[in-house]
Amino acid sequence: MTPEAIQRGIVGGDGPLQRRAMAKAITLLESTRADHRAQADELLTQLLPHTGKAFRLGISGVPGVGKSTFIEALGLYLIGQGHRVAVLAVDPSSTVSGGSILGDKTRMEHLSVNDRAYIRPSPSSGTLGGVAEKTREALLVCEAAGYDVVIIETVGVGQSETAVAGMTDMFVLMQLPNAGDDLQAIKKGVMEIADLVVINKADIDKNAATRAEAQITSSLRLLGQHGNPENAHHNEAQWHPKVVQISALLGQGVDGFWAAVTEYQRLQTANGRLAQRREKQALAWMWERIEAGLKLAFRQHPQVRALLPQLQQDVVAGRIAASTAARNLLLAQSGQAPAAIE
Amino acid sequence: MTPEAIQRGIVGGDGPLQRRAMAKAITLLESTRADHRAQADELLTQLLPHTGKAFRLGISGVPGVGKSTFIEALGLYLIGQGHRVAVLAVDPSSTVSGGSILGDKTRMEHLSVNDRAYIRPSPSSGTLGGVAEKTREALLVCEAAGYDVVIIETVGVGQSETAVAGMTDMFVLMQLPNAGDDLQAIKKGVMEIADLVVINKADIDKNAATRAEAQITSSLRLLGQHGNPENAHHNEAQWHPKVVQISALLGQGVDGFWAAVTEYQRLQTANGRLAQRREKQALAWMWERIEAGLKLAFRQHPQVRALLPQLQQDVVAGRIAASTAARNLLLAQSGQAPAAIE
Repeated sequence: MTPEAIQRGIVGGDGPLQRRAMAKAITLLESTRADHRAQADELLTQLLPHTGKAFRLGISGVPGVGKSTFIEALGLYLIGQGHRVAVLAVDPSSTVSGGSILGDKTRMEHLSVNDRAYIRPSPSSGTLGGVAEKTREALLVCEAAGYDVVIIETVGVGQSETAVAGMTDMFVLMQLPNAGDDLQAIKKGVMEIADLVVINKADIDKNAATRAEAQITSSLRLLGQHGNPENAHHNEAQWHPKVVQISALLGQGVDGFWAAVTEYQRLQTANGRLAQRREKQALAWMWERIEAGLKLAFRQHPQVRALLPQLQQDVVAGRIAASTAARNLLLAQSGQAPAAIE
Repeated sequence: MTPEAIQRGIVGGDGPLQRRAMAKAITLLESTRADHRAQADELLTQLLPHTGKAFRLGISGVPGVGKSTFIEALGLYLIGQGHRVAVLAVDPSSTVSGGSILGDKTRMEHLSVNDRAYIRPSPSSGTLGGVAEKTREALLVCEAAGYDVVIIETVGVGQSETAVAGMTDMFVLMQLPNAGDDLQAIKKGVMEIADLVVINKADIDKNAATRAEAQITSSLRLLGQHGNPENAHHNEAQWHPKVVQISALLGQGVDGFWAAVTEYQRLQTANGRLAQRREKQALAWMWERIEAGLKLAFRQHPQVRALLPQLQQDVVAGRIAASTAARNLLLAQSGQAPAAIE
């Protein structure tokens, strides 16, 4: 299939034809072959005018919090409301485990067989930066195919939450009603970037869930006040992070959750913050890829590869200052001789 | 003065001669002129064999926490014990305010006139990366001059705490006995990197200080357990972050504070972690400077400067995918033509 045929299948097709074109596109985008990459860039540029119309929802939480169960309930609820729902995943740990657990279709058995749902597991190779880039590109494919809610899920390990918050319109943190759980989220800086906190399994211990809600609400207020002075006073035109209780297993609270998401979308569209967030994300993505490219080119440069092992040893042993070693390597890459060291 | 003369003045000199050589060295290290930089690298390499013998102590806290008062009391206490004490500062906000407030000699009137103390304000130009690099190099100068305790202070704004923790053997966080203060520190990831937390102004409200100590001790335990499985069980051979109460104004608790520092140094030297920490810091410093150098060269490249403004606008407007723009800019810098976009 040529990029043009793939593009037509995604934008104009439907049913199995469209799904096949989407799969082809995502495979092309995930390829590391140079000629594929040139085709992928061409395809992306052609798809771009058809993207941007979905609501992009990030959902994060530690293993066992109930993400799959919740996303399945939410997806089926949204399809019942007339939406088309795509579910993507960012799971850098899949590189280690050799397979992707997130977005696995067997976990969402009802949603995965629904015509109006598209589920794609996490790309299973590369660094977090690479996985994130492929997921961002897959998101554009889903949007061009007309999915109007794209859910990107991630497991609460490492830096993946920040990556997902950086590619979505709204970032949701799922928590259990456990003491200490919220402290962990604050520590990792995840609470701070959450637009909405969901306490799942609220049915098991209603008292614990209510205590957790009070505690997290107070943390969110404190974090907001100190971090950002404009949040110090309640501003009606602006979203303030909230806490909602649900029971994904019993399907309770999904409507209340979606009402909060809709209210967020309404407010942040009206005050312009949603558009600003997307602009910032696009520029940050560009610079992230540039930095990754610069580091890769540096590490692959023959002169750098020749000098690096010895210089690293010298730095560790204290024979050369780290800043001097850095300058010598940069000069070597640029083709200039390292400064003479006596 | 030649680099050799400066080196002799620092390593062999004393009194005003040594101070003059130190000032010359630091001025040379802070210069941005290319020929000065080559001389500075030569000087650093000559000083390096005489460095590494000091204990490097980082101290951080928000404005008003009482850092100057405490550092003066600590410095005078240490001099009374036979030490020589240098105080450096990392304050990236000084670039904005147009002058450095940290390390200002007028704030430590007794310490600053003492023969066995050396106080140097924060470099007042450049980014945090630049300020941090100059401070790391100044630290090496102080060590070569025989100062055996080097204190690096920073104000609790931005990312400067991480930078200071990354150049010291032990990182101390100063807190007031206020509710919410510790939450802010956890949020910013500062609590997590603290080896010791000091509650200052404990004299004003002893009950509040005791409550804060209990709360922070419990937070440190929770953070340690989850973040690092090897901390889950108390290990006698390894340091566990502690909380101490002091009153810097009344000079109370300085001896207890120093006893904790000494215990930290003894344990972490015996178990090898202090040496590991310095090796990691040196390599991290090298890579930080390499990345900064790569970005600078990229932004200054003529082809990049020619293409960047338009591409940034295209990315923001959604006319080109961020990843495609990044690849085109990287190709432009490497002298290859950007991929054809239809």
